[in-house]
Amino acid sequence: MSVNLPAPNPAELYPVAGLRIGVTEAGIRKAQRKDLTVLLLEPGASVAGVFTQNRFCAAPVQLCREHLATGAGVRALLINTGNANAGTGEDGRARALSTCVTLARKLGIDPVQVLPFSTGVIMEPLPLERIEAGLDAALADARPDHWLRAAEGIMTTDTVAKAFGTQLMIGGERVSITGTAKGAGMIRPNMATMLGFIATDACVSQGLMQQLATELAEASFNRVTVDGDTSTNDSFVLIATNQAAHAPIDSLASAEGQALKAALLGVAQKLAHAIVRDGEGATKFITIKVEGGTTQAECRQVAYAIAHSPLVKTAFFASDPNLGRILAAVGYAGISDLDQTGIDLYLDDVHVALQGARHPRYREEDGQRVMQQSEIMVRVLLGRGAAADTVWTCDLSHDYVTINADYRS
Amino acid sequence: MSVNLPAPNPAELYPVAGLRIGVTEAGIRKAQRKDLTVLLLEPGASVAGVFTQNRFCAAPVQLCREHLATGAGVRALLINTGNANAGTGEDGRARALSTCVTLARKLGIDPVQVLPFSTGVIMEPLPLERIEAGLDAALADARPDHWLRAAEGIMTTDTVAKAFGTQLMIGGERVSITGTAKGAGMIRPNMATMLGFIATDACVSQGLMQQLATELAEASFNRVTVDGDTSTNDSFVLIATNQAAHAPIDSLASAEGQALKAALLGVAQKLAHAIVRDGEGATKFITIKVEGGTTQAECRQVAYAIAHSPLVKTAFFASDPNLGRILAAVGYAGISDLDQTGIDLYLDDVHVALQGARHPRYREEDGQRVMQQSEIMVRVLLGRGAAADTVWTCDLSHDYVTINADYRS
Repeated sequence: MSVNLPAPNPAELYPVAGLRIGVTEAGIRKAQRKDLTVLLLEPGASVAGVFTQNRFCAAPVQLCREHLATGAGVRALLINTGNANAGTGEDGRARALSTCVTLARKLGIDPVQVLPFSTGVIMEPLPLERIEAGLDAALADARPDHWLRAAEGIMTTDTVAKAFGTQLMIGGERVSITGTAKGAGMIRPNMATMLGFIATDACVSQGLMQQLATELAEASFNRVTVDGDTSTNDSFVLIATNQAAHAPIDSLASAEGQALKAALLGVAQKLAHAIVRDGEGATKFITIKVEGGTTQAECRQVAYAIAHSPLVKTAFFASDPNLGRILAAVGYAGISDLDQTGIDLYLDDVHVALQGARHPRYREEDGQRVMQQSEIMVRVLLGRGAAADTVWTCDLSHDYVTINADYRS
Repeated sequence: MSVNLPAPNPAELYPVAGLRIGVTEAGIRKAQRKDLTVLLLEPGASVAGVFTQNRFCAAPVQLCREHLATGAGVRALLINTGNANAGTGEDGRARALSTCVTLARKLGIDPVQVLPFSTGVIMEPLPLERIEAGLDAALADARPDHWLRAAEGIMTTDTVAKAFGTQLMIGGERVSITGTAKGAGMIRPNMATMLGFIATDACVSQGLMQQLATELAEASFNRVTVDGDTSTNDSFVLIATNQAAHAPIDSLASAEGQALKAALLGVAQKLAHAIVRDGEGATKFITIKVEGGTTQAECRQVAYAIAHSPLVKTAFFASDPNLGRILAAVGYAGISDLDQTGIDLYLDDVHVALQGARHPRYREEDGQRVMQQSEIMVRVLLGRGAAADTVWTCDLSHDYVTINADYRS
């Protein structure tokens, strides 16, 4: 089940020059399931990553950070599902490094030029042999037009593969952007999503990449939540293969920089929204916009309090306009000097609460009408400033409980 | 459904001299349901309250604070279910005050000597006429031995009435303590529970009461959570009717003060645990003890991160030892300098994780055995200090979703 999330449109998944993708079934946790993916980069690509802030970050996340910090050009990304290699200690690091060494040997590159990614069950040993045994098949599968296979290869509890692409003109040259992501549960990214990869053949100087990746994550993956559980393995990687013929972009303030960033953000937001639309058990896609705060941070804090409230989420699932639950969440969001008499609440175009109390003209049937939609906008006006922020989430249904009570069995 | 929570034992619900209770069916939201309760106090009682920190606090909570602050001796508590009178603005305050005025007139006291309490649906107008029409029947019902009726009269989604009592000797005199509470959802009290009332006939000087009430709440109601939703109406009231013949207690450090506090805490913790045992949809009672922190606050922060994780809670529901989810919650609890290699995890007596990784001798069947119990202790050792804290919670089941998707219908 997912909310208004069609399968990827193959015609939109543009090959990115300088990047090939190979996928195989390595039997990591279950048989006959695509679970091992390699992304191979020609020399000269610019790469930046944004990773989970969870202090129990997984072994591959630790290695990604270290390998990127060496400044050695990234040549390969290695992604497995079925096992998160988190909560595995020194042995987990050794296993993650071993997969990099094996792949590097096959490619004739240095192990620090490989970035490893894992997703799946926590605190189980990574099945090293199966991954290493699957590498040859994955490499043999590598082609530029395998984005859909990549999207399928990184799925876990996802019900729909997630991949989007776009094209734009820079300096008279047509450049492509294509990205994929996975994630449906343990989703409240803090600096990144479960796994997200966006590549472009545009030319972007390496010095700009980290800033660009961080700004993209902040306005997309870092604004979605399914269950408030920040994963141990969240990773978002931005790749510019630098194969297009235009002059390299070395400022995000330039016209070309702005155009590229806007196009990248479009893909990043579609991917982030796709994760929520495919949130475990989701039946509704909820946009929570908080305006009128003194800072963006306090708007975000209020938006997440609403987005994480089990009572609000179950009311959305029931299509029940029990909207006092939203006010209660605003009230406990942690803004100690919040004045309830300054607060307005809208559900789409329906003005529900005025100055902290039920609007005199609010009618239950108007709330009911909006609650029955599959796409709902919650708008809270704090009435104390000019800042705003937006968070996207889904409802909490029986299927969320079913999926997470049964995930390992 | 509740977890190991028997119905109240009438023999334990000791009448408290100087206090009478009356309950009636006022038809506030549903017919044939006890929904209006009065507690009547003889002159001279010491009373203190602890109230929700939710900035959307309900009208009756605002009035309670104001009435207590006048210093006028409290003579009556008026409690209705079926309507929370929160998110109702100035009109809500006027209605709450009106109920106090009407009750005060009937009793020949001042309206500020009445404390009003409401619980139920948020953002609906309080049905003033029904409450005021029910007062005579409630007053006519008033008797010292009606604690069980009080416990029934304040229930909403509770499945079991909650009341406990005890007796102790102070200065050669036998004194009684009896308390009741309600609450099953929207439970993550912050300074108090949904509604909790504890009374004793012991003699306690008014100057000690606020400190005593706050310390009791901190070690009981403020350490339980069902769904992380802090209610708009949380209120805990401590009453000493001062009718016992012993010399008044004017220090909590005295032998008598310590004995009384310990006995009161016993009742407060039983009530707080009862709320979790009757948590909406609960099938397990979970104690989360975090030790080895640098401060009690950081231990509490970690304990609540675990207690609020939907993934941890659904794993408990499934009896699935998917214990990496607990480590993930520890990791995202917000302790930015937490070192994962210092962390140990126990499930009851089973040593699950050693220094941040799966314990070499941990066997899945040992975790499975504990997870199948209805009472489970999660123990996390942070390995960075000597502080500790404990939080109590329950699992997240299908019934939680059912109850909260259907609550108003």
